[in-house]
Amino acid sequence: MFITFEGLDGSGKTTQARLVMARLKAAGYDVLLTREPGGTGIGDQIREVLHSLDNTEMHPTTELLLYNASRAQLVAEVLRPHLNAGGWIICDRFYDSTLAYQGYGHQLDLNSLKAIVHFATGGLRPDLTFFLDITPEDGLTRRKQASLFGEEWNRLDDMELAFHRRVYTGYQALMQAEPQRWVRINAQQPVEQIQTAIGRHLDVHLQRRPVPSIHKENPAG
Amino acid sequence: MFITFEGLDGSGKTTQARLVMARLKAAGYDVLLTREPGGTGIGDQIREVLHSLDNTEMHPTTELLLYNASRAQLVAEVLRPHLNAGGWIICDRFYDSTLAYQGYGHQLDLNSLKAIVHFATGGLRPDLTFFLDITPEDGLTRRKQASLFGEEWNRLDDMELAFHRRVYTGYQALMQAEPQRWVRINAQQPVEQIQTAIGRHLDVHLQRRPVPSIHKENPAG
Repeated sequence: MFITFEGLDGSGKTTQARLVMARLKAAGYDVLLTREPGGTGIGDQIREVLHSLDNTEMHPTTELLLYNASRAQLVAEVLRPHLNAGGWIICDRFYDSTLAYQGYGHQLDLNSLKAIVHFATGGLRPDLTFFLDITPEDGLTRRKQASLFGEEWNRLDDMELAFHRRVYTGYQALMQAEPQRWVRINAQQPVEQIQTAIGRHLDVHLQRRPVPSIHKENPAG
Repeated sequence: MFITFEGLDGSGKTTQARLVMARLKAAGYDVLLTREPGGTGIGDQIREVLHSLDNTEMHPTTELLLYNASRAQLVAEVLRPHLNAGGWIICDRFYDSTLAYQGYGHQLDLNSLKAIVHFATGGLRPDLTFFLDITPEDGLTRRKQASLFGEEWNRLDDMELAFHRRVYTGYQALMQAEPQRWVRINAQQPVEQIQTAIGRHLDVHLQRRPVPSIHKENPAG
């Protein structure tokens, strides 16, 4: 089972992904939490290039290829081996972010993007994707507040509001195209209520895919 | 006019590219020498990730996407603006290296590679490509000798001989497919003789494309 979290920066994805991780671990699943870009040694080096505030001259095609380089490494080194061994994955962003940010945000050709994503992932797709829904305006406000308390403020945060609005529109289009994979969660609520909403959807999937007996023997993980 | 140098590492590409640069500058052309991966600030950061000997776990798809990320930045930031302004470019490696190394060497799907290269370059192609021809065995011997004298020994040098033989075969196929663009130069000769052979081919192109008058006024460059 491969679960991803998507949404604008500031939507609380990272917090919610961690809570779901804890919930699944407590239930005895062999679950791994990772993120994009990064999640591997090489991916973290690529993440540094992508997020550096000094790299203002980065071209959108460069950005797109770097995200997919990080993704290719994550798929080959972490995701495929863990899924093949029967484990669960929670990933904080995956290729939907590429389509939303570089496709809709930067307005790169969507068909080219899909071909490059397919090359990078070898066709791996999430089983379930949570969209944490906040408006672009609220997302930017939250990110600015968080950066005052030491959270990283990166090169993509620095893009103008119109860009973040296009990204948001992109997510709507992606959800409409594949409604069976996506679950939209109102992320303007308090953290606990968001987690309760996510938990309700997750429980349906947990019932369909019980903990394998090999993991049940050691539920402490 | 966009000229590239291709061949195995150790074939003397870099030396010959520098000599051609000096020859064209002396003739009054507005010429720029660059290299792949790298050639821009962001490209040099990507080059570090690609060449680091610590990154032994790098997957071939990651490698391919990183080379093309560096290329996309080079095309957007340096090559297109300089060519559009009427300048000449000499590039030490370009997309033929991707097709030879990742396509034939790592045996990735050539059609996918061509699509990604097209995305990265926006369709930009060299006008003239010199292939400096040495055998894979000689290339490795030369690189090992050079590394004793302080030259970088990188992650791709570390690949086995069979890999370098496939790369060499790949270059033969690329030349056969586009004979009008490629010039094969015997690179087992002394440096001066190689430069003389390159110069003969270059002179034909120089006669076709004389120095623009705006550059002739300041032949010292």
